[in-house]
Amino acid sequence: MGPEEFRAAGHELIDWIADYRARIPELPVQAQVVPGEVAGKLPANAPEEAEPFSRLLADLDSIVVPGVTQVQHPRYFGWFPANATLSSALGDLASAGIGALGITWQSAPALTEVEEVVVEWLRELTGLPGSWQGVIQDTASTACLVALLVARERATGYSEVRGGLQAESAPLTVYTTEHAHSSVRKAVALAGFGRDNLRLVGVDPETYAMRPDALAKALEEDVKAGRRPAAVVVSAGTTGTTAVDPLAEIVPLAQRYGMWVHIDAAMAGSALLLPEMRWLVDGVEGADSLNWNPHKWLGTLGDCSLLYVADPAHLIRVMSTNPSYLRSAVDGEVTQYKDWGIPLGRRFRALKLWFQLRLDGVEAIRARLRRDLDNARWLAGQVEAAPGWRVLAPVVLQTVVLRHEPAGLRHEPDGLNAHTLAWADAVNTSGAALVTPSLLDGVWSVRVSIGAENTERSDVEQLWRLLQHAAEAAEAG
Amino acid sequence: MGPEEFRAAGHELIDWIADYRARIPELPVQAQVVPGEVAGKLPANAPEEAEPFSRLLADLDSIVVPGVTQVQHPRYFGWFPANATLSSALGDLASAGIGALGITWQSAPALTEVEEVVVEWLRELTGLPGSWQGVIQDTASTACLVALLVARERATGYSEVRGGLQAESAPLTVYTTEHAHSSVRKAVALAGFGRDNLRLVGVDPETYAMRPDALAKALEEDVKAGRRPAAVVVSAGTTGTTAVDPLAEIVPLAQRYGMWVHIDAAMAGSALLLPEMRWLVDGVEGADSLNWNPHKWLGTLGDCSLLYVADPAHLIRVMSTNPSYLRSAVDGEVTQYKDWGIPLGRRFRALKLWFQLRLDGVEAIRARLRRDLDNARWLAGQVEAAPGWRVLAPVVLQTVVLRHEPAGLRHEPDGLNAHTLAWADAVNTSGAALVTPSLLDGVWSVRVSIGAENTERSDVEQLWRLLQHAAEAAEAG
Repeated sequence: MGPEEFRAAGHELIDWIADYRARIPELPVQAQVVPGEVAGKLPANAPEEAEPFSRLLADLDSIVVPGVTQVQHPRYFGWFPANATLSSALGDLASAGIGALGITWQSAPALTEVEEVVVEWLRELTGLPGSWQGVIQDTASTACLVALLVARERATGYSEVRGGLQAESAPLTVYTTEHAHSSVRKAVALAGFGRDNLRLVGVDPETYAMRPDALAKALEEDVKAGRRPAAVVVSAGTTGTTAVDPLAEIVPLAQRYGMWVHIDAAMAGSALLLPEMRWLVDGVEGADSLNWNPHKWLGTLGDCSLLYVADPAHLIRVMSTNPSYLRSAVDGEVTQYKDWGIPLGRRFRALKLWFQLRLDGVEAIRARLRRDLDNARWLAGQVEAAPGWRVLAPVVLQTVVLRHEPAGLRHEPDGLNAHTLAWADAVNTSGAALVTPSLLDGVWSVRVSIGAENTERSDVEQLWRLLQHAAEAAEAG
Repeated sequence: MGPEEFRAAGHELIDWIADYRARIPELPVQAQVVPGEVAGKLPANAPEEAEPFSRLLADLDSIVVPGVTQVQHPRYFGWFPANATLSSALGDLASAGIGALGITWQSAPALTEVEEVVVEWLRELTGLPGSWQGVIQDTASTACLVALLVARERATGYSEVRGGLQAESAPLTVYTTEHAHSSVRKAVALAGFGRDNLRLVGVDPETYAMRPDALAKALEEDVKAGRRPAAVVVSAGTTGTTAVDPLAEIVPLAQRYGMWVHIDAAMAGSALLLPEMRWLVDGVEGADSLNWNPHKWLGTLGDCSLLYVADPAHLIRVMSTNPSYLRSAVDGEVTQYKDWGIPLGRRFRALKLWFQLRLDGVEAIRARLRRDLDNARWLAGQVEAAPGWRVLAPVVLQTVVLRHEPAGLRHEPDGLNAHTLAWADAVNTSGAALVTPSLLDGVWSVRVSIGAENTERSDVEQLWRLLQHAAEAAEAG
């Protein structure tokens, strides 16, 4: 396809996207398709001959749009916000148009240096220590794996260049809580620590945050048994309830045992743009790494996950490669992001952030985040005041975990679970809103995660009416 | 930014991209900036207030474009082709516009099912075994790490769910050659095998391909010493010379020792669309996994790397997670790509492939690949026929490795190295073309990698004249 064909099709697609975004409020939030329905509409083989662009556009309307859950919908309250602001989409389009090759500084200096600058902008905006440096990764899962790989290597004096993990005698241990994101367990497994060496430290029963005394005890026992504590993963906002582990109390313990401290702030990182929310990571100056996802609440089109480290030397030592065909005369003077993560090549992802911050402005972003925090507090207030309803965890961010507990079911966990799943499913299959059922203390609850870009108070009010009607209807049976 | 603002800015950006792509042939191929030049043009802080879109467009022209090496240029012959076809850019724009959340099937059924279908289209187009299944990863580095993690776990009976790699007694070993991509060594290190347990098996001095007899000997010695062979990484087209390891002879050895066979066909995978090139992976039906990058020669906008596996059960067993908030009623019936790799969330990357294959058509893609193979053979013929010039490795794909060896320097490696680097640098800094210096047998050579989408025979002819002039000028010096 040449530039002129692209121009014509591109204009059509821009109009299609603008129209689509405008009509999202009229679409069902949850995709209404059954397994195999989308695949069944596609031919078994790739076309030998080129198809006209109109056919692609028609398939977007008839196959793709009905086949996705509309996470840009103002009444999307599922999982976590997954905003894809149109300002960042423009940055992504610029990246596609330029088609740069991001393997070294030399292959695309601007790709590297714009990333350095916008990552520094966001460091300053979030109040992280001035000496920390960052890099864009794809997701928090990868960032956590990278942090744990570096922690593993630092703890073993860089065993990767010798006999590897098998040559190490004393087992390495990692600490987090059962409320940490599933990617922490996955990263522990993939990094080769073994699940037996992951300690799920006890939490406070009210806040679901890690108990420093329980961590201290686990550390003592492990060290006494000849194990070596390698890392602690601290959640600044868990996925289930946005619980905040007490970083400032964890850091001194970690320092005593020489552990790497990784902060998973995937969701909460956006809140750090608000000075009044910086308490979420009190103690951060004693940590080693922090990860957060602008592709969640902040609104940057995915994938865009930031990993900050106190000292990139550890990262580079573990991740660097240096084949002859990638060497250049300026190697000592420039940042080589290939040595800051797993992939060699990278997209020009910094453009998404650059465009978003410049086209939206930070002031407007902060106002949107504060709007969402207000809406969450408002909803929590409504729930707490309503008979039969409970808020199950502190509302620290923009997520409210709630349950409807009719008098007759309060002490019948099975009946209560069936009731909760029934009314949540009724809300979701209606298409009017989306919420996420989740287990808390072994019982089903419902997470309402506020923060889609276009969610206003009226949408939260409408959701609250929907929840009440659905619960009443389920109770009536 | 609302839909109408996006519409206006989007149309401007589409025009900007079309104009930019049209004028690439007039731009210097290699970025002409010095370290820090791009960063120095950007403000130290993010803007509090929104900026007009015109300012972003102006910065693309004045800062970004001069700051990237133009890999879409018809005289880009560096590293490997890094095409970003405009057809795939449209698919990527559709993905950005839709802004789907790719964490589970439920969150975006079409994201999963379109990926299943296009990955199957490409399996059929490349002649891989009918029972194999694939998934899109970001890069070959990640795909290789994923393969080696699965190999590690299969070899240890899934030690990740027990005490991890440290609890295993007999050391695991991995086999490849010194010509394998640097990402193989990195993956071995990151997976915890340790570099001491990586065997760089000897190669044929003419073809740079792995010697099966050397592999057999290494395996025997390791097993005799109590080590456990876990994996062999077979290069179908190395980065340095596109050498092809003899897969069909390696597979029986791997099977005898129960090793995982991973095929790195990052570059060569595109060639498998040509039936006459399928010999590159003769023996593939006995392998366990194969990775190739449509974001190279095929022309799909990065990042887009395909990982195929003979049996996804191993992959899923190693990579799966199942938190309560991601469960749904259809879990048993659908593919959950979160369990096929490291990240939980994924972009709707399948749209890039879907758009490209449909808008360009497979016939035209095959014709382009054959054009490039012809051009490489033509260039190799010219080089071989020219006095003082040598082709240093078999031209199996679209890459020609060459050297100018003036009579006076033929037996002076230091002088020859200085000469090679001087004329290659002269070509590159001129901006007229880009080639990549690379070490071969410890001596500098120059890789000419043909396959930019718009590279025609006339561009290769022009390159050949440039090389000759530069070498003569350097010799005259």
